[in-house]
Amino acid sequence: MKLYDLALSGNCYKVRLFASFIQTPLEIVPVNFMEGEHKEAKLLQLNPWGEIPILKDGDVILRDAQAILVYLANKYGGEAWWPSEAHLQADVMQWLSVAANEIQHGPNKARLIKKFGFEGDHSQCLENSYQILALIDNHLSNNNWLAANRPTISDCAIYPYISIAHEGEVIIDNYKHIKSWMRRLEQLTGYISMPGNEKL
Amino acid sequence: MKLYDLALSGNCYKVRLFASFIQTPLEIVPVNFMEGEHKEAKLLQLNPWGEIPILKDGDVILRDAQAILVYLANKYGGEAWWPSEAHLQADVMQWLSVAANEIQHGPNKARLIKKFGFEGDHSQCLENSYQILALIDNHLSNNNWLAANRPTISDCAIYPYISIAHEGEVIIDNYKHIKSWMRRLEQLTGYISMPGNEKL
Repeated sequence: MKLYDLALSGNCYKVRLFASFIQTPLEIVPVNFMEGEHKEAKLLQLNPWGEIPILKDGDVILRDAQAILVYLANKYGGEAWWPSEAHLQADVMQWLSVAANEIQHGPNKARLIKKFGFEGDHSQCLENSYQILALIDNHLSNNNWLAANRPTISDCAIYPYISIAHEGEVIIDNYKHIKSWMRRLEQLTGYISMPGNEKL
Repeated sequence: MKLYDLALSGNCYKVRLFASFIQTPLEIVPVNFMEGEHKEAKLLQLNPWGEIPILKDGDVILRDAQAILVYLANKYGGEAWWPSEAHLQADVMQWLSVAANEIQHGPNKARLIKKFGFEGDHSQCLENSYQILALIDNHLSNNNWLAANRPTISDCAIYPYISIAHEGEVIIDNYKHIKSWMRRLEQLTGYISMPGNEKL
């Protein structure tokens, strides 16, 4: 199973992190993002969106980190990480939407601007970031995990860009419930880091 | 089962449309959006995000239209609309992320600015809209439906804001595959319209 990957991408890290938790080996295919390889014909054929990660498992080709998490959980991860019961699965799903929307347009975009020189309104990204971080922190004041009262793919979808938020000058120091939740996730068997969130 | 609803909201319409397709009755609770009722304590208790739709089914309370679609499909809609097979479910999931991200920040936001006077960069919304519409149109040039080769909750999540895109001055006339797909969806048993997309 191939993951078209960039070490510095939080979206790719979502997939590597979850695959590591469920001990599913991935063949990493590095994509030269800085040279725009993801916008070239070969990768556009796999993902017309021109984005990574891309997962290739036999004939199955998937884009979008959240969809890849759902696939891996269904096929290799099992009930623990992606509950089948309707209200629990929907609870997880709420957070996959947050990962695709609020996190993308908050800490992710702030980092693209500050670390990679993308164009965009950084102050708007900060505003978006602090709005969603406050909601998440409040949620975690009463919950150890984002959804279903246990570690799920929700946590794998939300953690990455929060763990590297400082690279976009988003400061998480005051969100103590988020920080406790991060420590809990980092203690799970199989946890791996990415460049930017390694502990000293 | 209660839906906290606004007739003019495309996100609420996603839920009403799908519930109608699967013949699941909803008790509609109108929310006075213009008066900011969704930001008041009673509704913030149900959804701290301060947004609608909100679904209440007994003890289950859900925010986020995509998560509500997953819940309704699992509980009342069945396999047809939300496949259980890993690669098909992930295929649908790819489009739920598009609904939460690219559609939200394209045609949805363009309409919020033009129809409801929200602040924002309309020209950026137009650029986002035409980028995602071109990708969707190209996908539909080879597919009758967005995912899994049949009508799924993907279609219910993506159709609403495209069907009212003109209210945000997003012009879809040139996307002929999208227009054909819309006609197919509108022919399905149980289809209902919303203000702004009624046929004359």
